[in-house]
Amino acid sequence: MEAEALRYEKLAEDLRGIIAAGDLQPGERLPSVRRLSRERRLSVSTVLQALHQLEDRGLVEARPQSGYFVRHPGVRRAQPDSRSPPDMPVAVDVSQRLMRVLQAGVAPGVAPLAAALPASGLLPLASLQRLYAGVVRRHPRLLAGGSHINMDEAALVRQLLLRSVGWAGALAASEFVITNSCTEALALCLRAVTSPGDTVAVESPAYYLMLQLLESLGLQALEIPTDPGRGLSIEALDLATRDGRVAACLLVANASNPLGSIMPDENKRRLARLATDRGLPVIEDDIYGDLHFGNERPWPIKAFDGSGQVMLCSSFSKCLSPALRIGFIAGGRYRSQIALQKTIGSGATNPVTQLVLAEYLASGACERHLRTLRRSYQRQVEAMRAAVARYFPAETRITEPQGGFVLWVELPPEIDASARFEQAIAAGVAYVPGELFSASGMYRNCLRLNCGNPHSPEIDDAVRRLGDLLSR
Amino acid sequence: MEAEALRYEKLAEDLRGIIAAGDLQPGERLPSVRRLSRERRLSVSTVLQALHQLEDRGLVEARPQSGYFVRHPGVRRAQPDSRSPPDMPVAVDVSQRLMRVLQAGVAPGVAPLAAALPASGLLPLASLQRLYAGVVRRHPRLLAGGSHINMDEAALVRQLLLRSVGWAGALAASEFVITNSCTEALALCLRAVTSPGDTVAVESPAYYLMLQLLESLGLQALEIPTDPGRGLSIEALDLATRDGRVAACLLVANASNPLGSIMPDENKRRLARLATDRGLPVIEDDIYGDLHFGNERPWPIKAFDGSGQVMLCSSFSKCLSPALRIGFIAGGRYRSQIALQKTIGSGATNPVTQLVLAEYLASGACERHLRTLRRSYQRQVEAMRAAVARYFPAETRITEPQGGFVLWVELPPEIDASARFEQAIAAGVAYVPGELFSASGMYRNCLRLNCGNPHSPEIDDAVRRLGDLLSR
Repeated sequence: MEAEALRYEKLAEDLRGIIAAGDLQPGERLPSVRRLSRERRLSVSTVLQALHQLEDRGLVEARPQSGYFVRHPGVRRAQPDSRSPPDMPVAVDVSQRLMRVLQAGVAPGVAPLAAALPASGLLPLASLQRLYAGVVRRHPRLLAGGSHINMDEAALVRQLLLRSVGWAGALAASEFVITNSCTEALALCLRAVTSPGDTVAVESPAYYLMLQLLESLGLQALEIPTDPGRGLSIEALDLATRDGRVAACLLVANASNPLGSIMPDENKRRLARLATDRGLPVIEDDIYGDLHFGNERPWPIKAFDGSGQVMLCSSFSKCLSPALRIGFIAGGRYRSQIALQKTIGSGATNPVTQLVLAEYLASGACERHLRTLRRSYQRQVEAMRAAVARYFPAETRITEPQGGFVLWVELPPEIDASARFEQAIAAGVAYVPGELFSASGMYRNCLRLNCGNPHSPEIDDAVRRLGDLLSR
Repeated sequence: MEAEALRYEKLAEDLRGIIAAGDLQPGERLPSVRRLSRERRLSVSTVLQALHQLEDRGLVEARPQSGYFVRHPGVRRAQPDSRSPPDMPVAVDVSQRLMRVLQAGVAPGVAPLAAALPASGLLPLASLQRLYAGVVRRHPRLLAGGSHINMDEAALVRQLLLRSVGWAGALAASEFVITNSCTEALALCLRAVTSPGDTVAVESPAYYLMLQLLESLGLQALEIPTDPGRGLSIEALDLATRDGRVAACLLVANASNPLGSIMPDENKRRLARLATDRGLPVIEDDIYGDLHFGNERPWPIKAFDGSGQVMLCSSFSKCLSPALRIGFIAGGRYRSQIALQKTIGSGATNPVTQLVLAEYLASGACERHLRTLRRSYQRQVEAMRAAVARYFPAETRITEPQGGFVLWVELPPEIDASARFEQAIAAGVAYVPGELFSASGMYRNCLRLNCGNPHSPEIDDAVRRLGDLLSR
């Protein structure tokens, strides 16, 4: 027993040394428990003991389904608590403020910390553009097709299916609808399963475009408490859907926007069961699912859905190119209503772009690119966390995202992020004020930062200026 | 005076001879009045006298703004009368029947007389596909752009503006929104200016996708009588909009679908004035505007609009390719609401496709192509009229379209076109049943035929089979 104790101490000390020497950088993953166990000939529990010791000392952190990571020094900030939104659904009205934020955020000379957009240097743009030439040469009749129905390219649907084989055959080719973006996918699903006046359950905080969509469709938002670590509260959703007043649930289970939480598999299973039992349509935005920081691609709720209640929506705007404008829906039992809405709302989808995407997904380059990209995003998120911890007011809380590339920041309660927005733009920094993530006006002391760009001195300086401004 | 009389008789006889010899084919245009006057050294009134004589004898027909055309022998059918729709707005519910019609219409072995789709052989598909390769080579950073705002390509907007210079500067670059199709354009305009429960004035008969859109948005349709020659009744619209209960007017002023009527300029002017006086938003679908049979490109209502009440929507699906999926809106005073709906509903539009379209529009090939295409469509419509006159029941009425490529057919009142639809599909012929063009269940004895294909023996035989079936 003493020998065992020594062995875990020895392992912990070795790892400390490696971290202190800089051989393992902040944000990098430690070797897996299994590998350490095998290579050091230690039991799994001994390895875990060593890692727990490092964790207690703030040197490493555990991430669900992902393993252990070196912490940024000085980024031992508390995560924001999940808040209790009002019990009642609320009409949404944030549209014109949002347009101002989006437009100011892309103005020249403004640091791009608002919209969740990746730096173009991280994306395989040259490969995608080259594919266009090949696609139109090899398929000379592509533009002959009809304009309203039957124009989903089988090659693209096949690639999308192949990407989900790990989910135990969760998807079927016959349930797909190709769309002009993930945004359009969400809009079509909502139109397929709701009527004006209905109530839709959303996360709190929720992605602002989802709230906009609800407003535009005359729907009410019911905000469900959402934990920065575990995502939407199943208990609260359970309560809210007991009396049948909720027409649908709209959420981001994998790397939620803005919190970056990944819902544990057990909760996904419970949510899928709840949807089945109550006939509740679930609209799942999985656009960040490929951008997990852990080893394993997290499954979507759709993978646990046996009854077709879950509509899976996504696109490749966050990992290949935001300008392609191709998204998709695996619509389950709602497929035909969704297809009707697509026919009415925009008709078919351009077949050239569909095939360009299909060919890129079929290439070996795609998985290599995604591996590199995940590491870049993780590094950028860690660096942004460190910068915020350094420059923002002392009591600021910061999320610890498990994927994606946005950071949610809770400022001291007296600071109003909306009120400071125009000053920040004047100082050359954009962000998305927290109140846009709530239909009921919560989160005024919060903001979201885009970490889609490599953490350059310019970005660091922008965070510093923003921190100065918020500290005043 | 007698000499003059002889001269017009002589001209009429010469023209009769040319037609009888087949040197001027049915559907072809006679030389213009001005040219005949100049070349024969006759006064304009003498030339007109000769033409009126030919018209009275059923050999030629006058078309507004277009000149005189050789009639098809045996196609002296009456046009359908305009019908009186109910005074009250009506909730729309035709969606599932429509999907059945659209799907059956593209089934293999079925003659394509349903959806208004051109034969691919008529379209410049090879040129468009070649442009893709050039565009991505010359613009290597196209796919880097953001995903939600500011992604309308200036080169495309410029080409769209240039196409409207003849309309006395009706459009401004700042009012454009590029969309994923004309269908999406109409949907965005409706969402920008209406709320669920509102009433929208439409033509009667109206394009079925417009009725679908109203249904999907929870809007009521108020059907306004529409004349097969002169389009929507301004008097009826005037009456209907007196009490402010109409939230918008949605129509196709140029080559309406399905009637093929072109609204006279004077009526367009009156409609624009009415819209200004009453603050009535007008959504104008101009997708057939370039497909006029007359000499002059008819102006849209938008050209007469001084107050920004008119939203002009269009795309190039009917003349370049139905698969491009690029449309546009010149949104007037409603531009910012429309842009917001685009951001929420689908985000930005693919920039590669936008530039491909811009470069084609900028090429000299475009106008040459359109001239040829207009002649083809006119020939095909004439041939379809002749076939319908030959094969359909004797009392059948047929429209005389002034543009576009669909024909509206009114059968004897006891024939129900919806009830015969499945039999027709079984016989290998598709069409769109008339009831889909009305929210109030009118037009059950009508149907629409697509004339987008060259009138081959196969098409002729399909019309014959359909005629037999309807005569039984």
